[in-house]
Amino acid sequence: MNTQFVPIYQMLTEETAIKYVKDKGYLVQSENVLCEEIGDGNLNLVFRIVNEKDQSVIVKQALPYAKVVGESWPLTIKRAEIEGKALQYFSEHTPQFVPKLYGTDTLLAINVMEDLSDYKILRTGLMEEGNYPDLPEHIGEFLAHTLFYSSDFGLHQGKKKERVAEFVNPELCKITEDLVFTDPFYPSESNDFELELQKDVETIWHDPILKLEVAKLKRKFLTEADCLVHGDLHTGSIFVTGNSTKVIDPEFAFYGPIGFDIGQFFANILLNALSVEEELQSKRLQIISKTWDVFSQTFSSLWTYSEVEPFVEVDAFLEDVLKHTWRDSLGFAGCEIIRRTIGLAHVADLDSIQDQKTRIKVKKQALALGRRLITQRTIIPSPNQLSLY
Amino acid sequence: MNTQFVPIYQMLTEETAIKYVKDKGYLVQSENVLCEEIGDGNLNLVFRIVNEKDQSVIVKQALPYAKVVGESWPLTIKRAEIEGKALQYFSEHTPQFVPKLYGTDTLLAINVMEDLSDYKILRTGLMEEGNYPDLPEHIGEFLAHTLFYSSDFGLHQGKKKERVAEFVNPELCKITEDLVFTDPFYPSESNDFELELQKDVETIWHDPILKLEVAKLKRKFLTEADCLVHGDLHTGSIFVTGNSTKVIDPEFAFYGPIGFDIGQFFANILLNALSVEEELQSKRLQIISKTWDVFSQTFSSLWTYSEVEPFVEVDAFLEDVLKHTWRDSLGFAGCEIIRRTIGLAHVADLDSIQDQKTRIKVKKQALALGRRLITQRTIIPSPNQLSLY
Repeated sequence: MNTQFVPIYQMLTEETAIKYVKDKGYLVQSENVLCEEIGDGNLNLVFRIVNEKDQSVIVKQALPYAKVVGESWPLTIKRAEIEGKALQYFSEHTPQFVPKLYGTDTLLAINVMEDLSDYKILRTGLMEEGNYPDLPEHIGEFLAHTLFYSSDFGLHQGKKKERVAEFVNPELCKITEDLVFTDPFYPSESNDFELELQKDVETIWHDPILKLEVAKLKRKFLTEADCLVHGDLHTGSIFVTGNSTKVIDPEFAFYGPIGFDIGQFFANILLNALSVEEELQSKRLQIISKTWDVFSQTFSSLWTYSEVEPFVEVDAFLEDVLKHTWRDSLGFAGCEIIRRTIGLAHVADLDSIQDQKTRIKVKKQALALGRRLITQRTIIPSPNQLSLY
Repeated sequence: MNTQFVPIYQMLTEETAIKYVKDKGYLVQSENVLCEEIGDGNLNLVFRIVNEKDQSVIVKQALPYAKVVGESWPLTIKRAEIEGKALQYFSEHTPQFVPKLYGTDTLLAINVMEDLSDYKILRTGLMEEGNYPDLPEHIGEFLAHTLFYSSDFGLHQGKKKERVAEFVNPELCKITEDLVFTDPFYPSESNDFELELQKDVETIWHDPILKLEVAKLKRKFLTEADCLVHGDLHTGSIFVTGNSTKVIDPEFAFYGPIGFDIGQFFANILLNALSVEEELQSKRLQIISKTWDVFSQTFSSLWTYSEVEPFVEVDAFLEDVLKHTWRDSLGFAGCEIIRRTIGLAHVADLDSIQDQKTRIKVKKQALALGRRLITQRTIIPSPNQLSLY
């Protein structure tokens, strides 16, 4: 094969993906390699390439468009660079919780990284009633380290401001601004819900108190540049085994509010909790309370060693930061729960409920939970007071 | 003269400033021109160049260092580009309130602009007990337009995020972070105050409630990217005549909290108010209440025409934004008043009080006012409840 990579973007095929890996030397021995495209094709191509020694890599390439539910729109391939940089940053602080990054190719919008084929997507694992006892500790630690060390408490102000500019990510943020914070609260064409939910949905559209709180949360998302956030930390962005956890896909990363990732993670655990049997539900709630405990304890211990912010010594400042982070997390979780129920992108946890009556009932519960988290976020003091209904 | 401008930074002299203006054609007729350096030499060189027809321009060049009270430290000349861009942005929305910008030279860190020699620095005007009846309307309108149209309420999210990156201004922000929000609240070497204030200053350093509130305000300054703010809107950054107002020197411009400029303006009016006779004080307070009224009314009317944020239709969202803007303004004003009294950079309004006893008394009043604005900002509902003592 004589294909030459010219320096313009082109979509990889299984053949050119193999050639790319060989040319760049990502697999040392690569006489006989197999390549399989394993992505869902909506946003990215994902190739798994394995050699005769069973060594393998993942080649992920951003597509110049996004496809969701049949719709297709142009989308910047710059997100591959953002994803690579975010993985790089995460691995500096918590290498154990992200795939190894072997290289980023800005021109071709490619990241080459560790193959995690023996891992399972957390959402699938939870739907199969899997048990991941270390998950809360892993995610709590991941969040505490990555959020703290990108914030003004853990990073020199000049370096932080450089990062803010580097991670400006308008197109991916716009997806969240529209699909999480706006469309579900208006009669937008992008919404997608069963007819049986029409009344509940209209109640949302006409609830001025709810919408005021969503407006405030959206404003936070738009303006608060606290930390480098993953930006899309649902249970489909987490890989698990029995004792290992890997956060993947940070292409939505940007400098945003400290509670955003926490909230999205909580929301997706709660959506799963609503879909499972009662005896499993308390275990799901425990994931949330344990994750929050680990996050807040780890964040607190990093805080005491802050070398960049003199005010960390001030009484009650840490408590104030954590209190508002908790509240914001609940609010963001509420928006995520609502949009995953009636917006464009659903979750399998709810949609796969076969019995229609049950599915509608659970979705109504989801909407009620989302509304409660948004409007009561300042009066739910801690995870112990968090309930599904 | 045969001097050639080579493409590296060099400090202008009166001679080379004239040559620069001639070469670039900023003064059409320039056979006989006069040039005078009129800056204070701390941060910038400012040349006034006038020709035989009495046409004139200002050539402002950023120095690669800052000098304050004898100290000197390196400082990026990139601030000239920021200043040029900010003036450009301001003039798109309120051309009547900024000097005309004729050109920006990034390499030489120069802005060439309208000569405002017939204007007076507002601080001087106020100290001379001048009367500027249009000032509140002008500043209120300037703030409303420039803040609104750079925010997510008035600017498309993608464009806004580009601007956030463009106006990343770490070195100038660090000056504010240190000198306004940190040093005055700690026994820092940069502080500068009379021995008679030692006890009051130590009370500040050991007041945990005050320091917690300052910590929160500093965090807002560090993280909240609401709007393009001027960043240094004290009464020395405003030129006035009897009926015209020009905002100058936006080299500290960056995307920051919406209340910051308002707060710095309030603070410097309040500092003046403390220094004048009682019968003049109420007039100074009226500047604040009128400016707030004009700002909030203008901002509110722009709000109703927002084409970028669907949530502007939500009940009470505007009220919420204005309420928090007001509170933040008071908090920022409190920090500015304290730092102008005991920090590195003082104001002439206080320092020029000849009688020492009076000066110390007024400075103590300033410290008390600053503390009150910071700690009571959530319970002072409107300008009518604002008092000096």
